[in-house]
Amino acid sequence: MDHGIDLASVLLAFASALIGAKLFGEVAERVGQPAVLGELLAGVLLGPSVLGLVPITTGVLILAEIGVILLLFEVGLDTNLDELVRVGAPALVVALASMALPFLGGFLFARALGHATLTAVFVGAALTATSIGITARVLTELRALATREGQIILGAAVADDVLGLVLLAVVARIAENGSASAAMVLRATALAVGFLAVALALGIPLARHLVRVVGWANVRGVLVTAAVAFALLVALAAKKAGSAEIVGAFATGLMLARTNRRYDIHEAVRPAVDIFAPLFFVSVGAQVDVARLNPFNGENHPALLLALGLTVIGFLGKFAAGFCAWGGVRRAFIGSGMVPRGEVGLIFAALGKDTGALPEGIFVAVVIAVFATTFLAPPLLKVFAGGVSTAAASNA
Amino acid sequence: MDHGIDLASVLLAFASALIGAKLFGEVAERVGQPAVLGELLAGVLLGPSVLGLVPITTGVLILAEIGVILLLFEVGLDTNLDELVRVGAPALVVALASMALPFLGGFLFARALGHATLTAVFVGAALTATSIGITARVLTELRALATREGQIILGAAVADDVLGLVLLAVVARIAENGSASAAMVLRATALAVGFLAVALALGIPLARHLVRVVGWANVRGVLVTAAVAFALLVALAAKKAGSAEIVGAFATGLMLARTNRRYDIHEAVRPAVDIFAPLFFVSVGAQVDVARLNPFNGENHPALLLALGLTVIGFLGKFAAGFCAWGGVRRAFIGSGMVPRGEVGLIFAALGKDTGALPEGIFVAVVIAVFATTFLAPPLLKVFAGGVSTAAASNA
Repeated sequence: MDHGIDLASVLLAFASALIGAKLFGEVAERVGQPAVLGELLAGVLLGPSVLGLVPITTGVLILAEIGVILLLFEVGLDTNLDELVRVGAPALVVALASMALPFLGGFLFARALGHATLTAVFVGAALTATSIGITARVLTELRALATREGQIILGAAVADDVLGLVLLAVVARIAENGSASAAMVLRATALAVGFLAVALALGIPLARHLVRVVGWANVRGVLVTAAVAFALLVALAAKKAGSAEIVGAFATGLMLARTNRRYDIHEAVRPAVDIFAPLFFVSVGAQVDVARLNPFNGENHPALLLALGLTVIGFLGKFAAGFCAWGGVRRAFIGSGMVPRGEVGLIFAALGKDTGALPEGIFVAVVIAVFATTFLAPPLLKVFAGGVSTAAASNA
Repeated sequence: MDHGIDLASVLLAFASALIGAKLFGEVAERVGQPAVLGELLAGVLLGPSVLGLVPITTGVLILAEIGVILLLFEVGLDTNLDELVRVGAPALVVALASMALPFLGGFLFARALGHATLTAVFVGAALTATSIGITARVLTELRALATREGQIILGAAVADDVLGLVLLAVVARIAENGSASAAMVLRATALAVGFLAVALALGIPLARHLVRVVGWANVRGVLVTAAVAFALLVALAAKKAGSAEIVGAFATGLMLARTNRRYDIHEAVRPAVDIFAPLFFVSVGAQVDVARLNPFNGENHPALLLALGLTVIGFLGKFAAGFCAWGGVRRAFIGSGMVPRGEVGLIFAALGKDTGALPEGIFVAVVIAVFATTFLAPPLLKVFAGGVSTAAASNA
């Protein structure tokens, strides 16, 4: 079936992304860095601004989204909900600090440079997000997902994503009519925070029921198909409820982790994640325009300097938030885990650009800062991982 | 990342396709039919003409294509190349007969009804294709892929696809300038037939080399990722060489089946096929417009009668072709395996419509006949499977 779709370009992008991701991931691992850093760099190289093998088209973005949904579903399957609840208090405090500090820093910095209040709000808001995708991937690679630090980071990243989407709703409304009503803020907050609670309360018994029903079926692959369909539907529900799809996919993993088919589902989903998740990381890297990074081009200087400032503020704010955690944990590791901004930061930046709140130069600086913090996190986590592995070993 | 894509509709389509496919597949199996028939029917129900949950959008079609590429890759991994070569002669004769008989039948029928020569050429051409996807899926379900009959059907279906694309090139040229040059026909034939030979000759040593290189790597999931990237590149090369992507994916499976990591690749690819292939079959079913099938609507009568005639001709031509096989095989089973038209038939019909060679009423009839033969094949294969299982058992 052709239907006028440029299937060849999607296939080429998919194949190059897989080859580039594994090649650069392997090199990154050999020089002692997390593989995902290599995948991001492969994306920069394969993206439109260098080789152009991975264009940012509908086809590529859809496959990348399926990849990150499958990844967060797998991370959820790997996560112990009881452990996550146990770290709830420090995770929430870290999440709140990791939003408040970068927001204030970004806002004040932009105001100090003489930008309008609305522009400063968007600059601050774009620095608040934490990328669950990047962080979860690095934690998995470092085998730190099950440690107390890993669970605090994950819990705080989920809370950040939920709160970040509340902030997005509020900021979007501010951009629209210059003010926000208390009722609207409360409604958005209730919707986003409530989604996870309701989803888990309903989803855990539902997941057990699903696994039982599927056990009666004879058709091939029914368990993994049903599990993925469930994850897609919860992801969709999360989006409709004002949260992000990946939060829904993660919640589904948490639910199915509490069934007796957890291991079978995990075994079947893992290769699908191996095939589809690299495209997500490559597509994130592919959105970096290297021409904007050239320091020898004078036109780039104002944006690069602003970007440098925002990167430092974004980094320090998130890193400091890690030190709000307690309970004998490696706080520097937690702080590092909160640093990557990823896709939610880009959504804020894009919204700011679309509404005119962020002029082109500031938009570029925000995007550079989002990427810079994303690229910083994997090596940082690696540096501070030493103590965590020990802590995990003594926990076990 | 949003970028204005209607991700929610893709997620909903994906989830509904998976649930519908497994539900109807299970029901089909319980009433003694192949599961793929249920998946096709689920597609009709979920498609735009009934429930509208699975629209025919870019996102759905790309995921469906990835699904059918993974499926044919898995079928290739399951296929023994030596066995396929052994059945080469009967498979080729069956392939030629299964193109010639429906073409002549469709051409003469359309001429007898008073249609123009060009129209008759397109009607005949649309009836020549054989769907590897549907046939391979049913053969897998019936555990008949490794039988002599299964290998003849598969070999003939591959040959049909290659020859069908030659015919497509020729017919397209005829539609363009009312005549075809011998040089053009020869070139298209050489390109399409030559692709498989060259791909296999180069690919088998390359596949062994690839598996060896990948063995040195440490990053997670590198074997399955490399195998899928290889399949995507060969699929792309097949398309560029004038063949179909799925022929390339099938060829890659054949290559990797001759390496010592065959089993590991197969284990990792199977769940990915389980997740993505249903969307292909559902999307094929979703393209049926049930309003066109209503026999109580007088407007549908001419098209339905023409469709009935073409279905009978298309069925008899393909079924009879099975009787050209030799070597103590169940010829009725082989004939049934050649019956489904699938996507290549639709490509011919669409080309005929676009170039004006097929007026709307005849186009609809051709599309109905393509679908009718596709839906007929799974139960037919099931009916004639009895003797084949015995033959396979006595072979083994």
